[in-house]
Amino acid sequence: MQTVIFKNQPRIIAGGSVAGPKECSGVVGKYVDKTLEDDMFEESTYEKAECKMLSFAIAKAIEKGEMSEQDVDMLISGDLLNQIISASFAARDYDFPFLGVYGACSTMAESMALAATFIDGGYAKRIVAATGSHFSSAERQYRYPLELGNTRPPQSQWTVTGAGGVLVTEKSIGKSSLAITSATFGKVVDFGITDVNNMGAAMAPAACDTILRHFADMGRKPSDYDLVLTGDLGALGSRILKDLTWEKGLDIAKNHVDCGEIVYNVIEDEFQGGSGAGCSAVVFSSYILDKLKKKQLNKVLFVATGALLSTISSAQGESIPCIAHAVSVENV
Amino acid sequence: MQTVIFKNQPRIIAGGSVAGPKECSGVVGKYVDKTLEDDMFEESTYEKAECKMLSFAIAKAIEKGEMSEQDVDMLISGDLLNQIISASFAARDYDFPFLGVYGACSTMAESMALAATFIDGGYAKRIVAATGSHFSSAERQYRYPLELGNTRPPQSQWTVTGAGGVLVTEKSIGKSSLAITSATFGKVVDFGITDVNNMGAAMAPAACDTILRHFADMGRKPSDYDLVLTGDLGALGSRILKDLTWEKGLDIAKNHVDCGEIVYNVIEDEFQGGSGAGCSAVVFSSYILDKLKKKQLNKVLFVATGALLSTISSAQGESIPCIAHAVSVENV
Repeated sequence: MQTVIFKNQPRIIAGGSVAGPKECSGVVGKYVDKTLEDDMFEESTYEKAECKMLSFAIAKAIEKGEMSEQDVDMLISGDLLNQIISASFAARDYDFPFLGVYGACSTMAESMALAATFIDGGYAKRIVAATGSHFSSAERQYRYPLELGNTRPPQSQWTVTGAGGVLVTEKSIGKSSLAITSATFGKVVDFGITDVNNMGAAMAPAACDTILRHFADMGRKPSDYDLVLTGDLGALGSRILKDLTWEKGLDIAKNHVDCGEIVYNVIEDEFQGGSGAGCSAVVFSSYILDKLKKKQLNKVLFVATGALLSTISSAQGESIPCIAHAVSVENV
Repeated sequence: MQTVIFKNQPRIIAGGSVAGPKECSGVVGKYVDKTLEDDMFEESTYEKAECKMLSFAIAKAIEKGEMSEQDVDMLISGDLLNQIISASFAARDYDFPFLGVYGACSTMAESMALAATFIDGGYAKRIVAATGSHFSSAERQYRYPLELGNTRPPQSQWTVTGAGGVLVTEKSIGKSSLAITSATFGKVVDFGITDVNNMGAAMAPAACDTILRHFADMGRKPSDYDLVLTGDLGALGSRILKDLTWEKGLDIAKNHVDCGEIVYNVIEDEFQGGSGAGCSAVVFSSYILDKLKKKQLNKVLFVATGALLSTISSAQGESIPCIAHAVSVENV
């Protein structure tokens, strides 16, 4: 069984988030803790701005959970930059242990799943799970420096500038009714997509695999959830996911939403919508978490997807292996 | 408390390993499952060879544990390449869930600690924890392409070409007496070292921090272990670690060994010895595991250290944040 059920129901007690100006003109604008007017965040490089956003989201989640740094047992985090420097350098700001993870854009769900495992098993009491991304650092690392002014193809997505984190604790701490009730750890799925601009198509089969597995393992159906929330498939990837799951006899169309599809207000340069580890992290930690806290949503299956390629693997002719990890978040 | 005690004593039932010709002329040569005559391992690129080594180590650990792929619940792995492509592409070869981690050269201990946590808590029964590295892929990613023929400074270490993995299971499976009894998760420690060729000096303070924490949390002293085995501090880093721990009142000199210090037979181009995620993975999964299985060693504290830098962070003037994770491995 790929799905772990958390009998002790670890709680999400708070979330922290920050996003860039473009992101905040969209749906998350009203919900994030900080809107950046300038995506440099008073730093000298994009990478340092990305790290500062992540560190901000971590600090904010702790603060809003009414705790201090000394209370936290661990940070679980990763990001898209080579050697996950945003996470490692953000962890340097804090005096608690750090578990570095890498799941590309699936990192938020992977971190939350791990945090819940540690807490459910009694190995820790308070863990911050967080991640982020920055459009400009991702562009220059994965594609071209912005200064080149390269055009982007219509199947591409726009990396979200932002970071989000949640503070996950033991049930008895903080009196939150919002629990992580299960996690489904994904397998690597590779459908042979080689177009590095078409992440949605590459990741949709991985999302499908994990979603089918989750429903089978849990004996649930899509209508058991208020929302099946995928990470960053974008518009095209979401359509592919709906087709793939429908073919397997699972109709998620009625209650599926993709963070990448909803994060931007208007589709101009963004084409298929948002992507990046920060996409699902910001949307979940602000907009969705607010709705869960207010009980406008009560049962959400959060499925973050990641494309596990690098510029080297693609240059060497490899296709794009993908993964999706899922956590169910419920008011209990 | 940073240290987690595993009451259910998850077992290491088998290890798999492979290493290059230079490595196998040293201490691990007699113990690895496969010695590569050519470090390309019949692949067309260094990166593909690195991935193939990792996949081999995973398969070997499963095979030697007398299991098949279907029995395994999860792979926990990461590596040094950007976006941990060796681990992700190795995971693609297998039909079980994958948890990607990044801890630079601390990855082996991080993966083992996570595997033990999952199994101890009853969330999984059989997990492979593995990692590897390749001299040539690391050189061209972190430093210079080999074709340039750059000279290496005397404080540098030589990235190990090799991979190692262990199969960790529930106590009742496989009848192994070798248990992972505790794990100490490290904090990020940055002593301001900026010389990217001097990883030993950068990582020694992180190793010291985790080792001191482990002994304090467990109420143990160095003589309680047959061996305190660090990952890849090399000769200089090991000397610094001994000084640092001694200053804090802990004398580890009598039973400390560093994988990087012992992995190469002769020191010619290797200067301070071995490094890379594969260094501690290969040494632990072959030479040390053999001694533990034969009860020539009974209690080992395995402390793998990682330097969490990237070429970008260093180019932007940052110092090198480091981390060390520790697991205690005992015949029980």
